[in-house]
Amino acid sequence: MKNNGCAARIMFERARGTRDFGPAEMGRRLAFEKMCEKVASCYGFQRVSTPTFERLELFTAKSGAGIIDQLYAFKDRSDRDLTLRPELTAPVMRMIAEQKGQIPKPARYSYFGPCFRYEESKRGRYREFWQYGCEVIGAPSPLTEAEVVAFACALMAETGLEGWQLNIGHVGILNEILANIGLEGDSIGEAMRLLDKGDFTGLEASGIKSTAVNSLQALAKLNGGIETLASAREIITGMGVESGALDQLEEMLNNLTSLGINPPSLIVDLTVARGLDYYTGMVFEIMVDELGGEGQVCGGGSYKLFHLFGLDDLDPCCGFGLGFDRVLLALEAQAEKTGRSEVFPGENTAASTLAVIPFKADVSQVLPIVSELRANGQPVLLELRQRNIGKSMAWANNTGAGFAMVVGPRDLDTGQITIKRLSDGAEANCEMNAGAIIQTLSSL
Amino acid sequence: MKNNGCAARIMFERARGTRDFGPAEMGRRLAFEKMCEKVASCYGFQRVSTPTFERLELFTAKSGAGIIDQLYAFKDRSDRDLTLRPELTAPVMRMIAEQKGQIPKPARYSYFGPCFRYEESKRGRYREFWQYGCEVIGAPSPLTEAEVVAFACALMAETGLEGWQLNIGHVGILNEILANIGLEGDSIGEAMRLLDKGDFTGLEASGIKSTAVNSLQALAKLNGGIETLASAREIITGMGVESGALDQLEEMLNNLTSLGINPPSLIVDLTVARGLDYYTGMVFEIMVDELGGEGQVCGGGSYKLFHLFGLDDLDPCCGFGLGFDRVLLALEAQAEKTGRSEVFPGENTAASTLAVIPFKADVSQVLPIVSELRANGQPVLLELRQRNIGKSMAWANNTGAGFAMVVGPRDLDTGQITIKRLSDGAEANCEMNAGAIIQTLSSL
Repeated sequence: MKNNGCAARIMFERARGTRDFGPAEMGRRLAFEKMCEKVASCYGFQRVSTPTFERLELFTAKSGAGIIDQLYAFKDRSDRDLTLRPELTAPVMRMIAEQKGQIPKPARYSYFGPCFRYEESKRGRYREFWQYGCEVIGAPSPLTEAEVVAFACALMAETGLEGWQLNIGHVGILNEILANIGLEGDSIGEAMRLLDKGDFTGLEASGIKSTAVNSLQALAKLNGGIETLASAREIITGMGVESGALDQLEEMLNNLTSLGINPPSLIVDLTVARGLDYYTGMVFEIMVDELGGEGQVCGGGSYKLFHLFGLDDLDPCCGFGLGFDRVLLALEAQAEKTGRSEVFPGENTAASTLAVIPFKADVSQVLPIVSELRANGQPVLLELRQRNIGKSMAWANNTGAGFAMVVGPRDLDTGQITIKRLSDGAEANCEMNAGAIIQTLSSL
Repeated sequence: MKNNGCAARIMFERARGTRDFGPAEMGRRLAFEKMCEKVASCYGFQRVSTPTFERLELFTAKSGAGIIDQLYAFKDRSDRDLTLRPELTAPVMRMIAEQKGQIPKPARYSYFGPCFRYEESKRGRYREFWQYGCEVIGAPSPLTEAEVVAFACALMAETGLEGWQLNIGHVGILNEILANIGLEGDSIGEAMRLLDKGDFTGLEASGIKSTAVNSLQALAKLNGGIETLASAREIITGMGVESGALDQLEEMLNNLTSLGINPPSLIVDLTVARGLDYYTGMVFEIMVDELGGEGQVCGGGSYKLFHLFGLDDLDPCCGFGLGFDRVLLALEAQAEKTGRSEVFPGENTAASTLAVIPFKADVSQVLPIVSELRANGQPVLLELRQRNIGKSMAWANNTGAGFAMVVGPRDLDTGQITIKRLSDGAEANCEMNAGAIIQTLSSL
């Protein structure tokens, strides 16, 4: 290999913060995507897809002008502001708004694709990253919320990831309490932010009565499973608030239990605000220790966004986004810890492949067998170079193929062939036709 | 629905030349992608993936500065020139070059993803379009070329598309003839361009002897299947040329036949140049009438590119790119002509879905059945709104689900349930557990 110096070296670097995926990594990623589709189909979700780039205004409308610094924004030749999408909820809402909301409802949409953020590259954070997610449009209820959280939990369970934690809350509860205290508009948002930071001194300084601040602090301290709701109800009732949101959260959690969802850890956190103004009801996130720092692999809830795109928000939608790369990172960390060789079931796509090695044989007599095997759905990797047996078997072992067969002139004469399992060298003979070979592969 | 005026309207438009795909279209696209993966696996190809954007130099190095006008190019915050990828061969070559070529060879890579070209939107041409394709690296031979063309033909056959045409040639044949005439370097390229346009007057004007021009014209006039090779050999031998390239093409075509590949139409075209300098051997394209104009859905061949990225081109690679959207367009046109309702087998992902309608029943008693069905792999679409039977059945019929069951209090009491096939209203009763329901669904 020759290196043509610095200019050439720069030329063949990929762009910063992006990744290439070779066959092994892509086998894993495709297996994960396939699994997501399988679970989505069990939950009645159907895939939709939106463009890789959108008008810049779509994301500033949702997240404010502050997001521009994190975007890959550019202009097209007509001077329109475009940007690579940083997330997929706004595009899906835009797609529905563009159809004037005239889709059959309730709609259960899922999606998967690359998103882009301009940020410093670090472990688990890339400038191009993949998001999987879903939205339910047109049926706001605790049952819908339970279906969405159940779908997220089913995905997590199916990955085989261990020890993940579901944090769940409801922004309506705090809204009701703060409204009852007498706060309105911006001061509710400000109080939410102070609560999210745990700044109770700040809350009192903002003019909220100390008895109320004490109750809020008691609420924030609650930390446990579904049983937490009873203590919360006591505190909230003590404040003189009749919380419809608390009833909804309870119904949603009961539905989740009826749906058989049983996360390794479930924390009800009534003061979680998710820091985003568009959430209106239940909010949740899924955390994984392995990732350190924030550790979030999934987040979502009930929200209203349509008004940003010129449609009335008659109903809140409910959905989540799942960090596809971050789940894989956590799985890889756990696999390394436990010494598991396979991170994802079915990730080694070559395992069922048969390597076919023509040896001193007329290739035109070998190819019809190859063709017949493929026509019957058998993955065949044909050796292309007609080298000696040692080199050919070394090649076969190196491909990851599960099986090999060497076809020589004698085999073609007798119509019999020997098939070898590469993991342990076990052999079996059979007639040289697709049916017999495929049967032998499955019984070896 | 409310419209907030012009600013809002602009805000919810997608970017020009891009598309949204709803559930029906995505069902079709995912079925096509899945089919590609299945065929790829039979041919031993493994998926790789490269970033959505690359350094601009990657594509100017391959295709010249002229391509910049067609690119979505932008600068990152460090003033580096980046661009959305216009195609996938250069990125895959860049990926291999970046690993200094240290991958197990021969490598059979396949890929699939969106590409981007800034051009006027018209039928079948979008600014964001999807390309499927493959490359074989490290085993240049007629056998490799046959495997690549066979893979492309197997994909086309599996789509069910009718009447497609495989055009096949070899740029080496013309190179040998032109070199034998005494042309060198740039004048070979110029003569190739004139031949590609059928400009034989221009060829004579460029100083090529009229006997040679006549032979080239006779070669260009050849139009037929594999039998064309014999006539070509006569003309070429008559020019005093011993064409190794012609022998290779013949061997490749024989291999293709041994592999059982039998396109609806096969044209050997020895003067096809594909207009691209990096092709070195066999070249091919697949054409479809339905698309009008160029009608090309697939194109590829043997080529050398590594030298552009600072690695020695020891061996030519061989691959193709397939226009995913263009194949679908052609399929849709044929389905419309023949009145076929399904364009792609398996595109209706909802067909096996069971719509479950809780009716006046305690939802907490219905959800465990839903959960059990899903855990057994049965797609379930749960009605979320508890409305009357008429509206609920109208909803179920509208979802595309194949089956429905209404669960009322009596059903929960008796433990028996009625399942309805929505296409014709056929009904069957069974016990209300996952095993019995799934068996009933498959026998209905």
